[in-house]
Amino acid sequence: MNMYLDQTLQHYLDDLASSQPAPGGGSTAALSGAMGAALASMVCRLTLGKEEYAGVQQETEGLLRQTEKLRLRFQQLMQEDIEAYGRLSASYRLPRDTSEERATRSTAIQERLVEAALVPLEVTECAAGLIQCCQRIAEIGNATVLSDVMIGAILTSSAGEGAALMVRINLRTMKNEKLVAELGERLGRALTLVSEGVQRVRSIVGGRG
Amino acid sequence: MNMYLDQTLQHYLDDLASSQPAPGGGSTAALSGAMGAALASMVCRLTLGKEEYAGVQQETEGLLRQTEKLRLRFQQLMQEDIEAYGRLSASYRLPRDTSEERATRSTAIQERLVEAALVPLEVTECAAGLIQCCQRIAEIGNATVLSDVMIGAILTSSAGEGAALMVRINLRTMKNEKLVAELGERLGRALTLVSEGVQRVRSIVGGRG
Repeated sequence: MNMYLDQTLQHYLDDLASSQPAPGGGSTAALSGAMGAALASMVCRLTLGKEEYAGVQQETEGLLRQTEKLRLRFQQLMQEDIEAYGRLSASYRLPRDTSEERATRSTAIQERLVEAALVPLEVTECAAGLIQCCQRIAEIGNATVLSDVMIGAILTSSAGEGAALMVRINLRTMKNEKLVAELGERLGRALTLVSEGVQRVRSIVGGRG
Repeated sequence: MNMYLDQTLQHYLDDLASSQPAPGGGSTAALSGAMGAALASMVCRLTLGKEEYAGVQQETEGLLRQTEKLRLRFQQLMQEDIEAYGRLSASYRLPRDTSEERATRSTAIQERLVEAALVPLEVTECAAGLIQCCQRIAEIGNATVLSDVMIGAILTSSAGEGAALMVRINLRTMKNEKLVAELGERLGRALTLVSEGVQRVRSIVGGRG
């Protein structure tokens, strides 16, 4: 399995544009989140050590720890999405000649679907966490780089919304109704936080700009 | 100057999160556009050669040529943004002790500001072109990967909106009022196409899904 983080950006984009099943949309959502987190971290770093922001140093350090933790998680989720999707595709290619084979294949597909739904669900939940950080950074961070927080929030919102599409597709084919309902609820909660959060960042940045 | 496309994805994300002035938000917008274009290309490739889509082969080939051309341009713009921003930052650091130095510095800043505005403006204009491709791909492309077109459209919209923030910041400091008005109009036109386009992709995908 390719570890895309350790390969060139050009290689990732070329593979994404190719007809191979992965990487696909799920990984771009995670990467969009990683870029959003990186921009949030950059603004924290440009706030630390500046005399005019001396009053918020400690809080900014805490925010930076959170945004860097989320960036790491988004980076891992990008790879996990590619791997989960690869395993799901493989399960669809299992033999289905005998009734026993069909049962084995069906069980495998159902298990892989859960996995393939959980990864983008976590992307959306991480986006919800990150947008809250962006909100606070927009309030107290270095005012000369507010546009970077805003772009970070836009990328975070794309990450959350894009990953949610992948979750929903997998939920549609899952048979465990209780689990479908549970994951659907988690998704709805996270998506609401993301869309409310990005609006709040927009109005904070507008007010300070 | 680092050529980020030829370096690892991890390296780009680490530099983005650092306190160095570039790469920043502008480059993430261009990269978001490149990912959107790559996803659109992937869907075209998964439509070509399929019997059920035989009637749209030629049109899909034409769309693929366009999305790959746009991907290449977004990739270049990502690098150009980093370079233009670097030159603008350097012009702000020019000496300003004598009145002659101040005049030279001011002229340099004004020139670099135009450059630093034109790059993200082209990102937004490319996003407007790409979203039109996404629309048509959503109408005629392989129905099993419509979510990838939709995520592509979301990333394209982030690219256009994010880059527009960078354009506006540079326009604010530019002194040539005629040019400010002209670039502002181009930006407004492109942004309208992007936001109308993404809504249209959403409703087409919703109708086919």
